[in-house]
Amino acid sequence: MLKLDNIQAAKMKIASYIYETPIIRLQGLDELLHCNVSLKAENMQKTNSFKLRGALTKMLSMPLEQLQQGVVAASSGNHGIGVSFAAKLLNIPATIVLPDTAPPIKIEGIRALGANVIQCKLAERQGVTEKLSLEHGYAIIHPYDDYDIMAGQGTVGLEILQQLPHVDAIVVPIGGGGLISGVATAVKAMAPHVKIIGVEPTVVPRYSESLQAGERLLVKEQKSLADALLPLQPGERNFPIVEKLVDAIVRVDEASIVSGMKTLLLNGKILAEPSSAIGIGAALQGILPVAKSDHVCFLISGGNVGFNQIQSL
Amino acid sequence: MLKLDNIQAAKMKIASYIYETPIIRLQGLDELLHCNVSLKAENMQKTNSFKLRGALTKMLSMPLEQLQQGVVAASSGNHGIGVSFAAKLLNIPATIVLPDTAPPIKIEGIRALGANVIQCKLAERQGVTEKLSLEHGYAIIHPYDDYDIMAGQGTVGLEILQQLPHVDAIVVPIGGGGLISGVATAVKAMAPHVKIIGVEPTVVPRYSESLQAGERLLVKEQKSLADALLPLQPGERNFPIVEKLVDAIVRVDEASIVSGMKTLLLNGKILAEPSSAIGIGAALQGILPVAKSDHVCFLISGGNVGFNQIQSL
Repeated sequence: MLKLDNIQAAKMKIASYIYETPIIRLQGLDELLHCNVSLKAENMQKTNSFKLRGALTKMLSMPLEQLQQGVVAASSGNHGIGVSFAAKLLNIPATIVLPDTAPPIKIEGIRALGANVIQCKLAERQGVTEKLSLEHGYAIIHPYDDYDIMAGQGTVGLEILQQLPHVDAIVVPIGGGGLISGVATAVKAMAPHVKIIGVEPTVVPRYSESLQAGERLLVKEQKSLADALLPLQPGERNFPIVEKLVDAIVRVDEASIVSGMKTLLLNGKILAEPSSAIGIGAALQGILPVAKSDHVCFLISGGNVGFNQIQSL
Repeated sequence: MLKLDNIQAAKMKIASYIYETPIIRLQGLDELLHCNVSLKAENMQKTNSFKLRGALTKMLSMPLEQLQQGVVAASSGNHGIGVSFAAKLLNIPATIVLPDTAPPIKIEGIRALGANVIQCKLAERQGVTEKLSLEHGYAIIHPYDDYDIMAGQGTVGLEILQQLPHVDAIVVPIGGGGLISGVATAVKAMAPHVKIIGVEPTVVPRYSESLQAGERLLVKEQKSLADALLPLQPGERNFPIVEKLVDAIVRVDEASIVSGMKTLLLNGKILAEPSSAIGIGAALQGILPVAKSDHVCFLISGGNVGFNQIQSL
């Protein structure tokens, strides 16, 4: 179970290791996005993504004995950077299992923090991770399907409510569901009138389809520019929370993900990774269920974009 | 004369036409820049630069009869965009005189606002502007050497003090001196302990050299990436204010201007034009007279950067 208490405890636990990232009011985008636009800039977080919050919460909650054996994590990049950062802080070994398709900037970020990197096919990540755990005794730090991870990610929600008390809706990129289940739990407990809207790539609609079916479906592996939103199935612990608390899930096509990133950079002057600009893409596509007068907070989940990626826009 | 009163009056006058731009605390840059880093994000201002503040203040203070004859302005780009925006608002004709070297994005921005564009050599801008004024009866809107313009730009200073009351130093890009004289006048009147530091390109050191000489020197025309900071001589009305109120002027080389822009984009996740990233360049160069514990506000004066310019980094 995940409760507001856990998220508040996580906040205390990790407060001295993370940044309270800024809320940025971007009036210049209001007309284009048909609402009052604010960003929660987790692209400016330490390690440049929110993932550090969950990784720290999890690892600071583990028994020392287990921790000292080392950790292993499957990741599309940012979770790996978060786990590596936390491992360096705690002086323990970390191994990160990445898909072949992970962007170079994320791989380099992990290596720079001293972690060991292993690459494999996207669908094999889980198996490789479990094998490493068995062989070396490493504890697995799951990227989303874990209550401590969710509690950590949920601290973003607490900050948004504090920094932007008049918020009407929060737009959250959704992959496995770790961030949105944490944020929704925090926000719905404290301000149930605030809408929580999840945004996923059209090509991997694991949440849209699972919610419609009423069970956790496995969707087909596909390429997407949103490299952090590739999980093929909702997390077991995340799905019921999303089902219960999230107001809507919308799907964004690849072209709108690019437009979202470009608009945010050229009009908004903010650099975000494609997976984080997806909410802006949804607004541009005109599919966000918000009113023109709503104060909408777009959760910009990460900013690990290489120079090559910017140039390829 | 420029006094706090004028700046406060300007604030009232233009409040409904401009954005109160955000202050962004960028903890992730503290270590790199050796201070506590905040930005005043005028790159997120309407027209994407602070110049609108001065243009509006000036034009909203002119007699209607004169205004309706139309206006002309010499500009490196952003002042032209500000004047064009204000002219469109007031439904009067505007002509903007730009140097051959103005970046395409700024020229397009002016044209999109319906103003007439004339291009000439940098050194000829003044002459061409005066000729147009004589021929057509256009009022000249000077980019910096005017008390109403300075009063408008000074409103940025009022906002900084209100949004960041514990600020220790404000770092301001300096060209002709319109922005810094307005900001210094506002800030030194309300919080004289706050340091005002001007930053200019090493290749056009008009303020450093003029302050040393005690008079307004004319420096040699040079190319600089900082296309908004090209004036060759301090403004007549600006110079005595800068001489009296500004604590230090530092000079930044071209390589550090590029590093400043890159650091702000890739580490800070903020897109600024070279002329605005120059303060970050100064900090990287290690020449800002601030202490590690100081809360430093970098005035990000504009964000009109084309995609080509980003790619050329």
